[in-house]
Amino acid sequence: MSKVNEFISSNKDRFLEELLELLRIPSVSADSKYKADVRTAAEYIQKKLVEAGADKAEICETAGHPIVYGEKLVDENAPTILVYGHYDVQPPDPLDLWDSPPFEPVIKKTELHPEGAIFARGSADDKGQMYMHIKAFEAMMDAGVLKCNTKFIIEGEEEVGSKHLETFLLENKDMLKTDVVLISDTDMISNDTPSITVGLRGLSYVEVEVTGPNRDLHSGLYGGAVPNPINVLAEMIASLKDDKKYITIPGFYNDVLEVTAEDRAAMAMAPFDQEDYKKSIGLSDVEGEEGFSTKERASIRPTLDVNGIWGGYTGEGAKTVIASKAYAKISMRLVPNQKPEKITELFKAHFESIAPPSVKVKVTPHHGGQPYLTPTDSIAYQAAAKAMETTFGKEPIPNRGGGSIPIVALFEEILKSKTVLMGFGLDTDAIHSPNEHYGVFNFFKGIETIPEFFKNFAEMNK
Amino acid sequence: MSKVNEFISSNKDRFLEELLELLRIPSVSADSKYKADVRTAAEYIQKKLVEAGADKAEICETAGHPIVYGEKLVDENAPTILVYGHYDVQPPDPLDLWDSPPFEPVIKKTELHPEGAIFARGSADDKGQMYMHIKAFEAMMDAGVLKCNTKFIIEGEEEVGSKHLETFLLENKDMLKTDVVLISDTDMISNDTPSITVGLRGLSYVEVEVTGPNRDLHSGLYGGAVPNPINVLAEMIASLKDDKKYITIPGFYNDVLEVTAEDRAAMAMAPFDQEDYKKSIGLSDVEGEEGFSTKERASIRPTLDVNGIWGGYTGEGAKTVIASKAYAKISMRLVPNQKPEKITELFKAHFESIAPPSVKVKVTPHHGGQPYLTPTDSIAYQAAAKAMETTFGKEPIPNRGGGSIPIVALFEEILKSKTVLMGFGLDTDAIHSPNEHYGVFNFFKGIETIPEFFKNFAEMNK
Repeated sequence: MSKVNEFISSNKDRFLEELLELLRIPSVSADSKYKADVRTAAEYIQKKLVEAGADKAEICETAGHPIVYGEKLVDENAPTILVYGHYDVQPPDPLDLWDSPPFEPVIKKTELHPEGAIFARGSADDKGQMYMHIKAFEAMMDAGVLKCNTKFIIEGEEEVGSKHLETFLLENKDMLKTDVVLISDTDMISNDTPSITVGLRGLSYVEVEVTGPNRDLHSGLYGGAVPNPINVLAEMIASLKDDKKYITIPGFYNDVLEVTAEDRAAMAMAPFDQEDYKKSIGLSDVEGEEGFSTKERASIRPTLDVNGIWGGYTGEGAKTVIASKAYAKISMRLVPNQKPEKITELFKAHFESIAPPSVKVKVTPHHGGQPYLTPTDSIAYQAAAKAMETTFGKEPIPNRGGGSIPIVALFEEILKSKTVLMGFGLDTDAIHSPNEHYGVFNFFKGIETIPEFFKNFAEMNK
Repeated sequence: MSKVNEFISSNKDRFLEELLELLRIPSVSADSKYKADVRTAAEYIQKKLVEAGADKAEICETAGHPIVYGEKLVDENAPTILVYGHYDVQPPDPLDLWDSPPFEPVIKKTELHPEGAIFARGSADDKGQMYMHIKAFEAMMDAGVLKCNTKFIIEGEEEVGSKHLETFLLENKDMLKTDVVLISDTDMISNDTPSITVGLRGLSYVEVEVTGPNRDLHSGLYGGAVPNPINVLAEMIASLKDDKKYITIPGFYNDVLEVTAEDRAAMAMAPFDQEDYKKSIGLSDVEGEEGFSTKERASIRPTLDVNGIWGGYTGEGAKTVIASKAYAKISMRLVPNQKPEKITELFKAHFESIAPPSVKVKVTPHHGGQPYLTPTDSIAYQAAAKAMETTFGKEPIPNRGGGSIPIVALFEEILKSKTVLMGFGLDTDAIHSPNEHYGVFNFFKGIETIPEFFKNFAEMNK
């Protein structure tokens, strides 16, 4: 057993306890009332980086939530690995659907996690996965085997679009110089089937407001004679997809990089059970773009989903009102070659064009994100694949992910660095949902795999 | 000047002050947190009925909010008038759109109300109009001219469907025996154009719930592959009307009593300025069922409106979630001969039938109300028309109203009594909306007109 693994196995309880402590901090970046908690989480990460052996670990202020930067430089001739993660989390609502409080982590055994899973908001996305890197770093330092210069960017605004990361990267280009970016914020096919995410979807996110009458009206006196903004919004949303679930926004598919039949066939080989899938989320049937499989719909195809809608009277009882305004938050997942800015523009132009003359429409863009592809022939990918093969005893499958990590494109654009997405989560972790959890097995498997990646990356770069 | 009018003019300030005091009580029946306030309002009404000269005035408990019953019996051979009104009010939200707090009444002059209007939730619907009857009764008592047995039912659940009025009527049939029911809870065409509402629309009100996945999902991992209940709800709502704004529920129009071309021509004679109408509610254009005028769409035609919709993330910032559930409150206004129970059933069957197999749908009926027509050749209508002609100097126009007063059908069914809807509000009073108000002119004109009705009704019944 290597010195690294000895250190890890003799410190498991402490590693876990430190993660639980981090999970108790409600660092919700989207909601300003948690501002102080977000900072508390940043300070915790900084402290742990120092304890783990970083030469330097500082809290860098931004116009929003702070970024924690840490580094350990071992040799100017050694390759550099920049680890990225985030300590902020999604809002926990709806709270009543949690079996235990989102910020009071508990470890419970589940069918998929016989060794137990940590239930808490952020356990998988991304505190649990990010913290593996700090503990793996600590283990390599203790064992004296760290052969790569190591840099950490742990930010606090990933869940709100990494608003201020770009400025930080631009202002610190030299300090952040790296040969690869390593991120664990994605999932694997299963604990028996390791995989590495080689493709990500981009994101375009807008908020729309439809205004009918200039004030709420009595539906008895006005009903039938005036535009009801909620009905109108529903009609506009419905018209955004046709009966085959194709998105009707003109030009929406123009830049889509179609996946070859060969690659689609390869994707189809990865284990996937549609019935288990439906069962796991309680669906009697799936739904999506005609001509594509469930896995394809969730990875290589662009989408349009309403993430939130509200308007009129939503309280107890019945109120016969015609609202003045109706709102919706709408996001579109994008695939390689689609440009978020362009898609947002296409959406805005189209949505305004389909509004009936009787209403006013406002479209406000939120953050977006570029889609991404990792070349599987790169040293970085090979180093990651070999590392997982070592710890899982199986070669990982290159997989296309459905989610978006907007910052991956930033790293490529500003730091000119590719990214390796070596994530250890599962799609059943319920991230962004009530009862989010992360397997204890996955947590420690990640801590063991990361040093292997460092070792491989150092050797392959010789 | 009659003794009645002398009493009224010498007590104007007090009458107004008493109404303001009543308006300061936030008697919102739809929201249980106002329960105590609702009772306070009931106690206030009881007290005022006694002070006005009722022989009997009591708070009658129900399974919900109490009903205030009062009476003054003058002569067993005299005709009886049952006055109905309600002391509960609509929820005041959205609060931020009020220019002054909804439960802190202020009197301000407006273009339509040079003598001032009372701004407060319930000022017009129905506290202001209901209280006119108590003051008119006080004036008739003081002048010793009350020639009709008088009964008052002032309830506290009108805004939530008069849930427990039916039981009250059934249990007190004899006590409530009457020759006519008199209600002021409707409006006139304008202060220069008095009118009496002879037709009311009925109401069918349902709440729908659409369930997709059994938990909230990450739109990146699942987007495109699973039914999004918000998108589905939007599509289902959109499909409830065709491009001519006809309601597509099979059988919806079957029982509609079509209005004759003659009556439609008569309706078209009443003064109405479409441009003023649009301006008053800030619309660039009206919208509604093809082939009907704005006034027709709002009175003699049935409608379908979404009164509230909610689902997913509606907080600050952006959350990339696919909600498990989406909800809407949907109401249909019905016209004479349509049956609420039947329409609700048709809606439920249709809505469930159009749901895609991938989602679950739940339809929960709220309260409904029967449509209504008052015969213009009845003594009661004639007495009301003559009373208004006396006080306004103009014969009132028989008008079809768009709103619903479900209890009117109950009175007919249980007490076998017709109802006269002698209302003094205006459609610009913003009832159910922010800045609801009621003209001071209208308040006192009502107090003067009601004794005339009593006088006429007594004479015509000789």
